[in-house]
Amino acid sequence: MIIDNINYPKDLKKLNKNELVELSNEIRELLINKASNYGGHLASNLGTVELTIALHYVFNSPVDKFIFDVSHQSYTHKILTGRKKSWLDEKEYGKVSGFTNPKESEHDIFNIGHTSTSISLACGLAKARDINKTKENIIAVIGDASLDGGEAFEALNYASELNSGLIIVVNDNNMSIPENHGALCNLLTELRNSDGKVKNNYFESLGLDYVFVKNGHDIEYLIEVFEKVKNTKKPVVIHCCTTKGKGYSYAENNKEKYHWTHPFNRETGEFYTATAIPKENYGAIVGKYLMDKIKKDSKVVAVTASVPSYIGFNSERRKEAGSQFVDVGISEQNAVTMCAGIAKNGGKPVFVTGSSFYQRAYDQIQQEMCINKCPATMLVSASGIYGHTSDAHIGLYDMVIFGNIPNLIYLAPTNAEEYIAMLDWSIDQNDYPVAIRIPWNGVNHTDKGVPKEYLYTRYSIEKEGNTVAIIALGSFYQLGERVVKNLKEKYNIDSTLINPRFITGIDEEVLEKLKDNHKLIVTLEDGIVSGGFGSKIAQYYGLSDMKVLNRGFSMDIPTTFTANEMLEKNRLTEEQIIEDIRKIIN
Amino acid sequence: MIIDNINYPKDLKKLNKNELVELSNEIRELLINKASNYGGHLASNLGTVELTIALHYVFNSPVDKFIFDVSHQSYTHKILTGRKKSWLDEKEYGKVSGFTNPKESEHDIFNIGHTSTSISLACGLAKARDINKTKENIIAVIGDASLDGGEAFEALNYASELNSGLIIVVNDNNMSIPENHGALCNLLTELRNSDGKVKNNYFESLGLDYVFVKNGHDIEYLIEVFEKVKNTKKPVVIHCCTTKGKGYSYAENNKEKYHWTHPFNRETGEFYTATAIPKENYGAIVGKYLMDKIKKDSKVVAVTASVPSYIGFNSERRKEAGSQFVDVGISEQNAVTMCAGIAKNGGKPVFVTGSSFYQRAYDQIQQEMCINKCPATMLVSASGIYGHTSDAHIGLYDMVIFGNIPNLIYLAPTNAEEYIAMLDWSIDQNDYPVAIRIPWNGVNHTDKGVPKEYLYTRYSIEKEGNTVAIIALGSFYQLGERVVKNLKEKYNIDSTLINPRFITGIDEEVLEKLKDNHKLIVTLEDGIVSGGFGSKIAQYYGLSDMKVLNRGFSMDIPTTFTANEMLEKNRLTEEQIIEDIRKIIN
Repeated sequence: MIIDNINYPKDLKKLNKNELVELSNEIRELLINKASNYGGHLASNLGTVELTIALHYVFNSPVDKFIFDVSHQSYTHKILTGRKKSWLDEKEYGKVSGFTNPKESEHDIFNIGHTSTSISLACGLAKARDINKTKENIIAVIGDASLDGGEAFEALNYASELNSGLIIVVNDNNMSIPENHGALCNLLTELRNSDGKVKNNYFESLGLDYVFVKNGHDIEYLIEVFEKVKNTKKPVVIHCCTTKGKGYSYAENNKEKYHWTHPFNRETGEFYTATAIPKENYGAIVGKYLMDKIKKDSKVVAVTASVPSYIGFNSERRKEAGSQFVDVGISEQNAVTMCAGIAKNGGKPVFVTGSSFYQRAYDQIQQEMCINKCPATMLVSASGIYGHTSDAHIGLYDMVIFGNIPNLIYLAPTNAEEYIAMLDWSIDQNDYPVAIRIPWNGVNHTDKGVPKEYLYTRYSIEKEGNTVAIIALGSFYQLGERVVKNLKEKYNIDSTLINPRFITGIDEEVLEKLKDNHKLIVTLEDGIVSGGFGSKIAQYYGLSDMKVLNRGFSMDIPTTFTANEMLEKNRLTEEQIIEDIRKIIN
Repeated sequence: MIIDNINYPKDLKKLNKNELVELSNEIRELLINKASNYGGHLASNLGTVELTIALHYVFNSPVDKFIFDVSHQSYTHKILTGRKKSWLDEKEYGKVSGFTNPKESEHDIFNIGHTSTSISLACGLAKARDINKTKENIIAVIGDASLDGGEAFEALNYASELNSGLIIVVNDNNMSIPENHGALCNLLTELRNSDGKVKNNYFESLGLDYVFVKNGHDIEYLIEVFEKVKNTKKPVVIHCCTTKGKGYSYAENNKEKYHWTHPFNRETGEFYTATAIPKENYGAIVGKYLMDKIKKDSKVVAVTASVPSYIGFNSERRKEAGSQFVDVGISEQNAVTMCAGIAKNGGKPVFVTGSSFYQRAYDQIQQEMCINKCPATMLVSASGIYGHTSDAHIGLYDMVIFGNIPNLIYLAPTNAEEYIAMLDWSIDQNDYPVAIRIPWNGVNHTDKGVPKEYLYTRYSIEKEGNTVAIIALGSFYQLGERVVKNLKEKYNIDSTLINPRFITGIDEEVLEKLKDNHKLIVTLEDGIVSGGFGSKIAQYYGLSDMKVLNRGFSMDIPTTFTANEMLEKNRLTEEQIIEDIRKIIN
């Protein structure tokens, strides 16, 4: 095997062109093998094998610097820079993260998980290089869909003014997570169909040199192109056409399914039931609800920024919803602001994206959406500790930032019935922007009945007790339930359990009443504790005798983590919470 | 006077072309007269007089909907839609806000103060129109500089997919607040110089129809163009070349000075000393410091997103700094991310923008800058209640969102010496990203000496007392000082005064020590109280007997306000704070 002798990029440079091609086959095999056993980003990595080999062949990492946008396509880069063991040895599968990570290797410049930032980062590195009067090459590798993000444009717009060497490799596989959208997608298609010749070239309009590479899997040609632009003194775009999922037919034929994959049977391409998403999941539940709603009400529009799976909108549902489904591509700012416009003009928009990706639209939510009180609905997915599992995809900050926005009603359902009731109310009301934090701790149900209206902040007292009250928010409600149950069963402490339902606002009536016969309030929240939900409760009781313990996560978050590790580290296991409560009240 | 008979757009439609021209002269006179007496956005409004008259002549507002980007150019629109009195009668000057405001008029669709959102909002309105099966025209008016913001690109990229009627008027005056930057600026210049004919047209590359208007002050021609695109079934860009400051020679010749102006002598163009920025201001102080630093250290780079005045970088200083000054145009996301890159590769970037505009870069600060621990400096201007004075330009949220970001050190200096010491330390350290909240309550000084290092969260006890401790943050430090002084003088209460200096983190040693002989902590912060600085103190003392009163602003913020009104409303005057303290401790 050629890979046996490849530990670092320098080893690559000894290979001839045939050996490089052979190496690409070996790497592709490793990628498919690990993904089928362990899961991960597959299709994006299969598309960039040759491109990455050619880059490392021509350039001199880590002196020359590669920035992979989102960095979910950096597996080949990792294999070539000292980390192949994590693909060769199944015991090592978990030891390398899915994104570039400077703690792993000097070849990884940044810890990256959000899209559309690579060109900005590269501009910054290039600016510093010029200040330092050094000569390294700076290379950004960015996918076609990531070009939709406004920041990528901002950086392209600035790049020509930088007036210095910068290589931007556009990895064009004509896909986002689902299908692509927007004018740029059409333009790239035209460029592919015309061998790079169109009347109005977006990149050239922004003052950038442009090179077209028809076959981004032809290592020899890629090397030739990269050799030509090496040490360039100005910014240049290399438009490489690649095939997402290349070399694994199931992935080539269903790019969306294998963008990020659960373990699968590589012969049949089927996910294993044991490790796949359970059949009952919030995507499926809300997808069915929303599809029905769309059919009944022509004013309802489901909007997403490239992650329709969060509302269970697979390609069939997207088709069925027709013009009542909008995917704006990876552009959360535009999505939120468009929803403000739709709501203002009488439509009923429901936007969905992940907690981590909402961060990019903070300003638009605060300004266009909320100071204008546009009655749109925003569904927040992959939130909390059970959502994403790295600090570059993080679902822990949404309550801090969106919990403190004027006019926003931010709701935290604790089960499927509450979630759908909140959503149904939100879609039809005309008063406020509403966000709903989808509980990410698995699907729970209630048979107790749930309110139909969520206009005013009203906490729900689920069990009345005394001395200690547990206010257990959203996805931590079931944790609160277990704490209350065990306090009673094991220690005969009859505590109160509250489902606050609202992240924004506080229910003063309930909080005031608790003063009568409680001396400790414990808040449990599945987010950063500093500035979070619990801090409002602590502020409220600041002048009273009530003791308040806020439990959530500290901001000391490792690059990758598991939910259980993090719960334990932050004293959020059932046992730890009970232990701490007993210490305080005794 | 023609204006006498113009109250609403319908009145405009009776005028002939000569009368429309005459009206434009009258309106221009009103704009100059009010600005010279009262201040406000002048140059941008002088440039859009004819354009706005032509729009209202052709279209049928409020059925047809205008969205003005930032809306600082909407004065003529306001004059034509029932609000001319605020320009005709000096007693009414303050009764109309400087931005579009639905509370003022049904002709104002949104309350807008941030850039680059108009096309997204228009896409949303258009989408809802199509759902509603109505036929109104939707028109976004956006300046050339606002096109630099990533969201404008995101919306342009989506617009062609919308596949419906949308009119985008690009008001190209070849200026941002200072000079323009970026490739788009060069492209627009090429378009101006070629009567709209270039090889690579950015707008056409994004699938949009394009119409060039050489003279955006020719009402008759503008009407002709707008009539042609009225009721269009697809998105079209009308590129109108205008002159910023048109018709007032001082403004035409110094567009930056008159972008937003203090009252001035209209004969000489000079600002009146009484109402202008005081000679001693933080822009001037930091500008001198930074210029010296730049000269001594070639690694220092001052970066801004179109607001260089916040660091006192006038055109002379910008020139003098050469390649050590970067203006990326209105693109905060790119600016922050570039700074992360510069810092990562050994440069020393200092980025400045306003508190309100930092909101747009929340994600980039949290992700690229802070989880990567890039040692860049970010200066936060126009923060707090003394900064901007409307909810669409708001400096009250930065501490909530940036006070809770991992690895960020967010500092709150209380005077010039502290500010410069913090900045000097921040620039030269290599450990952490640092943000500094410029105190916006006027320049204060200290002769006590200030620390040179700000690595660890250390509060400064400025005066030791007992019973009550006032923790007075940043621009509210002087308020705290006055409270402490008067508590002693008037009521013989010997309170403690603390300058916390740090918005992020808490100084547990100091807080713990206060327990010995204090029973009440009062925090004063010039920002939103919910989730803010004080909430960390309330959380800290949650399980102790210490009483905590957090004072700051509620999120109930009017469209426009004065600092004094807001202080009083939130019980933040010296007298109110003293009254409340006495009530609590007695």
